[in-house]
Amino acid sequence: MNDKELARLLQSLIDGRISLNDSVKQLKKLPLEDLGIAQIDHHRELRQGVPEVILGEGKSLDQLEIIITAMARKRRNILVTRLDREKATSICRQFPDGEYDHDARTFCLVQQKIENSGKGKILVICAGTSDLPVAKEAIITARMLGNEVEELIDVGVAGIHRLLARQELLQQAEVLIVVAGMEGALPSVVGGLVAKPVIAVPTSIGYGAAFGGIAALLGMLNSCASGVTVVNIDNGFGAAFAANRINRKDRPV
Amino acid sequence: MNDKELARLLQSLIDGRISLNDSVKQLKKLPLEDLGIAQIDHHRELRQGVPEVILGEGKSLDQLEIIITAMARKRRNILVTRLDREKATSICRQFPDGEYDHDARTFCLVQQKIENSGKGKILVICAGTSDLPVAKEAIITARMLGNEVEELIDVGVAGIHRLLARQELLQQAEVLIVVAGMEGALPSVVGGLVAKPVIAVPTSIGYGAAFGGIAALLGMLNSCASGVTVVNIDNGFGAAFAANRINRKDRPV
Amino acid sequence: MNDKELARLLQSLIDGRISLNDSVKQLKKLPLEDLGIAQIDHHRELRQGVPEVILGEGKSLDQLEIIITAMARKRRNILVTRLDREKATSICRQFPDGEYDHDARTFCLVQQKIENSGKGKILVICAGTSDLPVAKEAIITARMLGNEVEELIDVGVAGIHRLLARQELLQQAEVLIVVAGMEGALPSVVGGLVAKPVIAVPTSIGYGAAFGGIAALLGMLNSCASGVTVVNIDNGFGAAFAANRINRKDRPV
Amino acid sequence: MNDKELARLLQSLIDGRISLNDSVKQLKKLPLEDLGIAQIDHHRELRQGVPEVILGEGKSLDQLEIIITAMARKRRNILVTRLDREKATSICRQFPDGEYDHDARTFCLVQQKIENSGKGKILVICAGTSDLPVAKEAIITARMLGNEVEELIDVGVAGIHRLLARQELLQQAEVLIVVAGMEGALPSVVGGLVAKPVIAVPTSIGYGAAFGGIAALLGMLNSCASGVTVVNIDNGFGAAFAANRINRKDRPV
Amino acid sequence: MNDKELARLLQSLIDGRISLNDSVKQLKKLPLEDLGIAQIDHHRELRQGVPEVILGEGKSLDQLEIIITAMARKRRNILVTRLDREKATSICRQFPDGEYDHDARTFCLVQQKIENSGKGKILVICAGTSDLPVAKEAIITARMLGNEVEELIDVGVAGIHRLLARQELLQQAEVLIVVAGMEGALPSVVGGLVAKPVIAVPTSIGYGAAFGGIAALLGMLNSCASGVTVVNIDNGFGAAFAANRINRKDRPV
Amino acid sequence: MNDKELARLLQSLIDGRISLNDSVKQLKKLPLEDLGIAQIDHHRELRQGVPEVILGEGKSLDQLEIIITAMARKRRNILVTRLDREKATSICRQFPDGEYDHDARTFCLVQQKIENSGKGKILVICAGTSDLPVAKEAIITARMLGNEVEELIDVGVAGIHRLLARQELLQQAEVLIVVAGMEGALPSVVGGLVAKPVIAVPTSIGYGAAFGGIAALLGMLNSCASGVTVVNIDNGFGAAFAANRINRKDRPV
Amino acid sequence: MNDKELARLLQSLIDGRISLNDSVKQLKKLPLEDLGIAQIDHHRELRQGVPEVILGEGKSLDQLEIIITAMARKRRNILVTRLDREKATSICRQFPDGEYDHDARTFCLVQQKIENSGKGKILVICAGTSDLPVAKEAIITARMLGNEVEELIDVGVAGIHRLLARQELLQQAEVLIVVAGMEGALPSVVGGLVAKPVIAVPTSIGYGAAFGGIAALLGMLNSCASGVTVVNIDNGFGAAFAANRINRKDRPV
Amino acid sequence: MNDKELARLLQSLIDGRISLNDSVKQLKKLPLEDLGIAQIDHHRELRQGVPEVILGEGKSLDQLEIIITAMARKRRNILVTRLDREKATSICRQFPDGEYDHDARTFCLVQQKIENSGKGKILVICAGTSDLPVAKEAIITARMLGNEVEELIDVGVAGIHRLLARQELLQQAEVLIVVAGMEGALPSVVGGLVAKPVIAVPTSIGYGAAFGGIAALLGMLNSCASGVTVVNIDNGFGAAFAANRINRKDRPV
Repeated sequence: MNDKELARLLQSLIDGRISLNDSVKQLKKLPLEDLGIAQIDHHRELRQGVPEVILGEGKSLDQLEIIITAMARKRRNILVTRLDREKATSICRQFPDGEYDHDARTFCLVQQKIENSGKGKILVICAGTSDLPVAKEAIITARMLGNEVEELIDVGVAGIHRLLARQELLQQAEVLIVVAGMEGALPSVVGGLVAKPVIAVPTSIGYGAAFGGIAALLGMLNSCASGVTVVNIDNGFGAAFAANRINRKDRPV
Repeated sequence: MNDKELARLLQSLIDGRISLNDSVKQLKKLPLEDLGIAQIDHHRELRQGVPEVILGEGKSLDQLEIIITAMARKRRNILVTRLDREKATSICRQFPDGEYDHDARTFCLVQQKIENSGKGKILVICAGTSDLPVAKEAIITARMLGNEVEELIDVGVAGIHRLLARQELLQQAEVLIVVAGMEGALPSVVGGLVAKPVIAVPTSIGYGAAFGGIAALLGMLNSCASGVTVVNIDNGFGAAFAANRINRKDRPV
Repeated sequence: MNDKELARLLQSLIDGRISLNDSVKQLKKLPLEDLGIAQIDHHRELRQGVPEVILGEGKSLDQLEIIITAMARKRRNILVTRLDREKATSICRQFPDGEYDHDARTFCLVQQKIENSGKGKILVICAGTSDLPVAKEAIITARMLGNEVEELIDVGVAGIHRLLARQELLQQAEVLIVVAGMEGALPSVVGGLVAKPVIAVPTSIGYGAAFGGIAALLGMLNSCASGVTVVNIDNGFGAAFAANRINRKDRPV
Repeated sequence: MNDKELARLLQSLIDGRISLNDSVKQLKKLPLEDLGIAQIDHHRELRQGVPEVILGEGKSLDQLEIIITAMARKRRNILVTRLDREKATSICRQFPDGEYDHDARTFCLVQQKIENSGKGKILVICAGTSDLPVAKEAIITARMLGNEVEELIDVGVAGIHRLLARQELLQQAEVLIVVAGMEGALPSVVGGLVAKPVIAVPTSIGYGAAFGGIAALLGMLNSCASGVTVVNIDNGFGAAFAANRINRKDRPV
Repeated sequence: MNDKELARLLQSLIDGRISLNDSVKQLKKLPLEDLGIAQIDHHRELRQGVPEVILGEGKSLDQLEIIITAMARKRRNILVTRLDREKATSICRQFPDGEYDHDARTFCLVQQKIENSGKGKILVICAGTSDLPVAKEAIITARMLGNEVEELIDVGVAGIHRLLARQELLQQAEVLIVVAGMEGALPSVVGGLVAKPVIAVPTSIGYGAAFGGIAALLGMLNSCASGVTVVNIDNGFGAAFAANRINRKDRPV
Repeated sequence: MNDKELARLLQSLIDGRISLNDSVKQLKKLPLEDLGIAQIDHHRELRQGVPEVILGEGKSLDQLEIIITAMARKRRNILVTRLDREKATSICRQFPDGEYDHDARTFCLVQQKIENSGKGKILVICAGTSDLPVAKEAIITARMLGNEVEELIDVGVAGIHRLLARQELLQQAEVLIVVAGMEGALPSVVGGLVAKPVIAVPTSIGYGAAFGGIAALLGMLNSCASGVTVVNIDNGFGAAFAANRINRKDRPV
Repeated sequence: MNDKELARLLQSLIDGRISLNDSVKQLKKLPLEDLGIAQIDHHRELRQGVPEVILGEGKSLDQLEIIITAMARKRRNILVTRLDREKATSICRQFPDGEYDHDARTFCLVQQKIENSGKGKILVICAGTSDLPVAKEAIITARMLGNEVEELIDVGVAGIHRLLARQELLQQAEVLIVVAGMEGALPSVVGGLVAKPVIAVPTSIGYGAAFGGIAALLGMLNSCASGVTVVNIDNGFGAAFAANRINRKDRPV
Repeated sequence: MNDKELARLLQSLIDGRISLNDSVKQLKKLPLEDLGIAQIDHHRELRQGVPEVILGEGKSLDQLEIIITAMARKRRNILVTRLDREKATSICRQFPDGEYDHDARTFCLVQQKIENSGKGKILVICAGTSDLPVAKEAIITARMLGNEVEELIDVGVAGIHRLLARQELLQQAEVLIVVAGMEGALPSVVGGLVAKPVIAVPTSIGYGAAFGGIAALLGMLNSCASGVTVVNIDNGFGAAFAANRINRKDRPV
C-alpha cells in the first residue's frame, strides 16, 4: 500500500503531472512510517503466530475487553500478563477458549497453532516454591512465543546438591532462565556450571532487607559468574522474551 | 589422573585387596572434584584459545605479574580488565608482546591465534563519546573470546536520526550490546528496532542525579522494549561475555 | 479596599487628626499584606477566570465541600485534583454543574467562560496508555488555566516510528509536556526533535525497579537532550501549571 | 546537497534511466537523514550564532583540542562546560581569543557577534555564595545562547527580607532560574512571588544529609509553589538551555 | 519503700545482726534500681500531673485497655497517641471521661488539673492544612504536658506574606514548632525570623518524590537557618515533648 | 539405599559383569547426591526431633495443608512461621493437636518429645512491647529446636536501669538474642555487658525515618559493642536458628 | 534613616507637594526592608558580641580574607567553621590574633570580650574519641556565642557504666548536646536520664553500613527517648547554635 | 578500694559517727561504678592475655602512639586495626617488636603468650582473592583473641566444586566466618552444608551496583540458609570477635 502510494507519486513525476521540485518536497513531507521506518511494522505483521502481548496491570476491564476483542477478531494469539484474578474471571467468561493461570496471572488465548521457532530448549530454574509465579510467567510466555520449555523447581543454593544432581538437564538447555528471590545467588552458581546464556530474574520474595527484590536484583547484577544478564524484578515475561530473542531459529529476512 | 586413581581403587577391589564395604566408604570420601564435578574443570581445559581473564582492580602489581607469568608459560591468551595506567606501564615492560588499551583499561596478551567461534557479528552501540571506555572494554573482550565485532558510536537518543540512519547495520548483527550512561534510553529504542538479543550496559557517565550509573541502570531494567537484559554498571566485560555465551557456535560436548 | 484603608489613614494625617510621627508608627505596624506585599494577592484577584485549585488528596469530604461552596459563591472556576472516586460521587451530587474525570481524578466546576490566555498550543505527549491518567490531569489543568491543548497518545520509544511520524504536530506546539513511566526516555527523544520548551513528567507506572517512578524521574533529570525540565512523579497538574507560566500571553502589569 | 542527490535520482527516473520500481527501492534504502529526518540537522545549520556546546567532563585534552579546532575553523561560537582548570590552561594557550571562567568552569570562544534572540530578560537567582559556580554556568550559557541576563546573588530563605526587597527585579524577568543547595527552598518562595516560568537548579552544596544535592533536588521537586520545574543537580547549563527554549523570539520556520 | 529496705539492712548492721562484710556484699548485690539509679524512677513519681504517654500504634485493644485501666486507677492523666479510630471508639466507650481527637488521633483522659509548667508560650506553625493532624498531635501533647500553646495554620512559603504578616506572634513565643511536608522549607524561613528555639517536624504529606516525608526531613536537616533542630517524620508528639523540655520552669531538684 | 546401589555396582565389577572402565564411567555419572553430597541429607535424617520448618508467607492454604499433611504422617515436629491468622484458623481445624500463636504468627505441631539439645540457656531480650511478636517467634523457634529459653521484656535503652537491674540474668545465658526496633540501640548496651554471643534482631517497629526497620538494622550493623552479629529485619526465626547453631551440644559425627 | 525617609514622604503629603493618591502608590513601592521587615537586620545589629559566622567550606582563600578583613574592621568577633588546614595557615598569618583549632577546623578571632549570655551550662557529650572533632566544633561555637560549656568525652553505650557514673554532671546541665557516630545510640540513653533538652548530633564516624553518618542519623531520629531533637550529620555548629537559642538569657526586646 | 570505701562508710554508721538516714543518702549518691557496675571493669582486668584493641582509623599518629605506649607499659597484648601504611611505618619504628600486616592493615604487639582459649577451630572462608584483606583481619584478630584458625581461600560460588571438595574442612570447624563481596552468595551455600555457626562478612569488593558492599550485605541478610548472621561491611574484626564469643571455653565466673 505504502509502496503503491509512493509509486503513484513517482508515476505523476514521470507523467509530468508534478515537477521534480515538487516531488522532492512531497517526498520529504511524507510521514516517516510510509518510507523506510514503516518496514518495522510490516516486519511485525510477517511474524505470524507471535502472540500479541498486553500488560494487564493498570488497564481497566473495559479497556482490556476492547483490546482483546479487536485482536481476537484478527485470529491472533493473545497473551495478557499481570492480570488479576477478578478481571480474569470476567474475561474468561467472555473468551471461554482462553485460559487463565492463577499463579502466573496470565491469560492465554490460542487461536493459531504455535509453531516451535526455537533452536533448542529453554530451561526455567527456580530457587524456591515462592518464586513459582514468576517462573510460571516466564514458562507460559516462552511457550506462547514458540519455544520448548523445561522447568527445574526448588533448587535453592542452601541445598546445593539438589541443583548439582541435575547438571545434565542444565547442560542440555540452549538458554537458561534462573528465577530467585531473597539473596538471588542461584544464577551465580548456574552461570558457573554452564557455558550457555543465563538470564537472571530477581523476585520480590523475601521480607525486611529483601526490600521487595532489591537484594536479589543487586546480587544478580554483581554475580561473580561472568556474563549473567538480568531483567527487572518479577519480570518473568521479560526474561522469556529475552530468551526467545536468543533462541529464535534464523529465518531469511 | 583422577581416572587413574579411581581405577586403581577399583582394581584393588577386584583384586580383593580391599573389601566391597571399604570401597564404598572410600568412594564416598573422595574429594568431589575427583568424581563427577571435576568434569567442569576438565571441560575448561578443552576450550583451547579462550583467554584467561584477570580482574586487574584490587590486585597488586606483584600479584598480577605472578599470575600473568604463570599463565603466559602455558601459552594461554590473557586478558586483564580494569587495569590502571600505572600498573599497565610496568606490565607492558615485562610482557612486551602484550598490548594495553588506555580507554578500555585492558591488557591483552595473544599467544595463540584467536579462532572465530561466533555464529554472527556482535554489534557494540554507544550513546556518547564518554561511554567509549566501557564500549571498548566490551569490544576487546568480545574479540578476545573469538567473536567478530562491529561498532556504532555516538548515536544518542537526543539525535535519534543518527541511529535510524544505520538500521541496516543493526539488522545484520547476531547480538547487540548497547552502552549508555545518563538516562540510559538507547537500549529501549534499539530493542524496538531489532528482534535479536540486546544486552544493555549502563555506564557511570553523568553527574548529579545520575548517581554513578544508577539512573541508567534503572532506565534499562525498566525498558519498555521487551526482552532487553542488563549487566552491572560499566560492565563492558560482562556484556561481551554474555554476548559470547549467545554467539558461540555449537560444538559437540 | 486596602488602598481605601491606607488612603483613610493618610487623609487623617492631612487633616491633622493624627501626627506625622504616629502615621509612621502605624504604617510600620500594618500587617505586611496591607502594604507592598499585598500586591501579590491583589494581583491574584485581577486574574479573572483563573480557577481556584484544590488538592483533593488528604482533605476530608467535609473540608472539601466547605471550601468548594465558599468558592462557588464567588463565581470562581474551580479545579479539584487528586480527588478519589468516592468523594467525587458525593461532590458531584452537591454541585451538579461540575464534572468529574475518572481517569484524571479531577473535578471541574466552570462558572465563568475560560478565556484563551495562551500564545500557542500546549501539546501533551504520552508514552503508554497506562500513563493516560497523568496526561489527562495535565490536559484538564492546562485547559482550565485557559490554554489550547492537543494530545499525542501512546508513542513510546520502543516503537519510535510512531513518534517520528507525527513530527509536524511536535513542531507546531508552543510548549510540550511529555508524560512517561518506566525508563522515562521519551522526553529525551522529543527534546532532540524540537527547540521549544519540553516539560517532562515521570509517572509511577512500572513495577519492580521502577520504584514507583524513581527510574523515570532519574531518567528525565539525566536527559541527554539539553534543556528538558522535570516535575514531580505523577504531577500532571504541576506540568500544566508550568506550561501555563510559559504560554501566558503578556499583559500590561 | 541532499536535495540534489534526491533530485538526481528523480531525474534518472524521468529520463527513464531507472525504472519506477527501482526508484521506490532506492528511495526506501536512502539513509533516513537524507529524507525527512534530515531537516532537523538542516534546521540546526540555519541557527547561525548558536554556539556549539561541548561537555568538557570525561573528554581528554586531545579530544577537546581536536573538536574545538574543527569547530573554530567553521567560525562557530564555542562553549565548553565542566572544563577543569588544568585542561583549560592548555586550551586557553592554544585558543588565546577564548575565555575561561574559573568559577563556572566554562570556556567561551566567541567568533561571531551574539545576537539577542530573547523576548525578555532571564534572571538568575542564587541562594548562597557557594552556589555561585552553578549560577555562573547558567549565566554564561544563557548569554552565549543570545539572552540578556541579570543576576541576584545571596538571597537565601533564612534572610527572606533580602529577596522580598528585590521584588521589582523578579517581576521584570521573562524567565527565572533559581539556584540553591542545602534544603533548596528558594524556588518555592520565588515561585509564589511571580507568575513567570521558574526553573529550579539544585546544587551539591551542603554536607551530611545534603547527600550531594539530593536534599535540594527533592525539595524542589516537591515545591509547594505550583509549576516550578527542575533540572539535574548542578546543571546550570541545562537550566539556561531550558530558559532559552522559553525565551527565544519566534522566528519563521 | 526502697529507702525502707535499705534502712532495714543498715539497722541490722548497727544491731550487729549482720557483719560489716556481709553488708558490703549485700549492698553490691541489690538490684541497681534500689540504689542510685532508682532515683530516676522516684524522680518520675514526683512529677505529679505529667501524663502517662502510651503509643497506641502496634498495641492491641486488649493491651491498651489493660494499660489504661491500670493507670486510670492511679488517677494519672493519660495520653494515647497514634490511636486509630476503631480502637478509639471502643476505648471512649469504656472511659467516657476521655476525649478522642480524630485529626490528631490522640486520646486524652484528664483526671488531675494540668498545671501550667511553662516559662512561656509554645507556638505551633503549620505549612498547609494537610499537615494539621501532625500539628494537632503536637498541640495536644504540649497542652497535656502543661504548656500554653498557640497555633498559626496554613502559612506555607509559597505565600510568604501570610507568614510575614504574623511576625509579632512569632516573636512572642518561647519555643516554636514548625510542621511542614512537601519540601519542608518553612522552618528555614521561621528560623531566620526568630532567635528562639525552632523545632522542625517533617510530615509525610506529599506524593511521588516526597517519599513519605524524606524530602521534608532532608530539607529540614539541611536548613540554611542556623540552629534549627529536627524530629522524626510525623512526630508531632516528639516535637512537643522536646518543646516541653525547653519550656519547663526550673524547679528545685 | 544409596549405599546398596553403590554396593551393587561394585559387586558387578567384582563379579566381572562390568569392566573396570565402565565402572569408572558409571561412577562419574551417578547423580551427585548418591555419593558424597548425599551425606548432607542423610545427616539431616539423623537429627531426630528437629522440626521441619515451613515459611507460611507466600504459600497458599492448599500448599500448606499438603506439606503439613505429608510431614505429619512421618511423625515429624512441624513449625510454620509467618502464618497469617486466616490460614491458621483453617489449619488448626485440620490439625487440632497443633497450636497457633497469634503474636508470633507461628503454628507448632509437636508429635515427638523435644529433647533439650542445648549447652545452656538462650535469653531473648526485647526492647519494647511492640517488638514482642518478633521476640516470640524467636522464643518459640528456639524451643522447637530443643533449647531452654528465658525472656526479658521491655527493657529499652531510654530506661537503662531496667536492663542494668537484670544483669545476673544476662550473665547466665549461653547465647543472647536482642530484639529491638526504632534506633536498635539495645544490642550495643547488652554486648557491652556480656562476653557471650549476642545476636541482634532489628524489627520493623517505628514510623517515618524508621523506614520499616532500616534504622534499627543499620544501628545494629554499626554497633560499637564488638562482635554483635545481626539477622534480617523481623527475623526472629533466623536469630533463634543461629542461636541454636551456637548452643547445640556437641555430638559424635 | 528609613523612618526619616518615610517621614519626609508623609511631610510632602501634608504639605500638599504630592497627592494622597501618589502617596499610596509610593508607599506600596517602597522596598520592603525600608519598612517593617528591616527591623530584623536592625535587631541583629543590636546583638553586640555575637560573632559573625562564616562557613569556610566552599569559599576560596581570597573570598575568606576579604570577608574576614571587612568584619575585623568592625571589631566583630569572628568564627570560621569547616576551614581546612591549608587555608587556615594563611589566614592565621594574616590575622595573628586569631586561633585555629586543628580538630574542630574552626578559626576564632575574638576582638570583644564574650559576655556570658546563658541561663546555665551546656554539656557536650561525646561517644568516642573519633567523634571529638564534631564535639569540639560544638564546644567552640557554644563558647563564641557566649555560653559556659562542659564536656564529657568517650562515654559510648558499649561501656554504659562510664556514663552512669557521671549522672550528676548530666543533671546539672541546662542543655545537653550528644555527639555520636556508628549506631548513634547515646542520645537515647542520655534522653532517658535527664529531663532537659537533648540535641543529638550524628557524626560520619564509622565505615561500611554506617553510610557516612546515615546510620547514626536514623538512629537518633528514631530515638526511643521522647523529645530528643536532631541536627545534620557532623553539624556541631548547628547543635551549638540550637543550644544557644535555648540557653540565651531573656532580654528586653 | 571501692569495697574499702564502702566498708569505711558502714563502719562510720556502726560507730554512730553518721546517722542511718545519712548513710542511706550517701549510699544513694555514690558513683555507680563504685558499686555493682564497677564489676564489669574488674571482670575485664581478669581476662589476662586478651589484647587491647584500638581502631586505628580516625586517630592521629600522636594519639595512637600515646595509647600504645600506655598499654605497652602494662605488658598488654595490643591489636591496632584499620591502620594505614603510613602511620604503621612510624609505629613499627617506635615499637620494633610489633608486626604490621599490609593486607589486613593490622598492627600486633604480642607481649604475653597468647593462650588458646577456644573450644575448637575457627575457619575463615573467602570467596575471592580480593576479599583477602578482610579475611586476614578476621584471621589475625581471631588469633590474637586466643583461637586456632584455619583458612580456605578463593572458593567463590561460580566455581562451586572448589568449595564442595573441601567439605571435610568445613565440617571440622567450630565456627565459620565467610567473607565475600559482589553478590555475597557464599554464606548461603556454606550455611546449607554445615550445622555450625556461620558468620557472614560482606566486603566492599565489586563496582557499580555493588554499591561498596551493599549488594553483598543485603544478600547475606537475606540468605536462604537459616541462621546465618551478619556483621558490617569489611568488618573482619567484628566477625572474629563474634566467633571468639562463641568459641571461648567456659571458665568459672
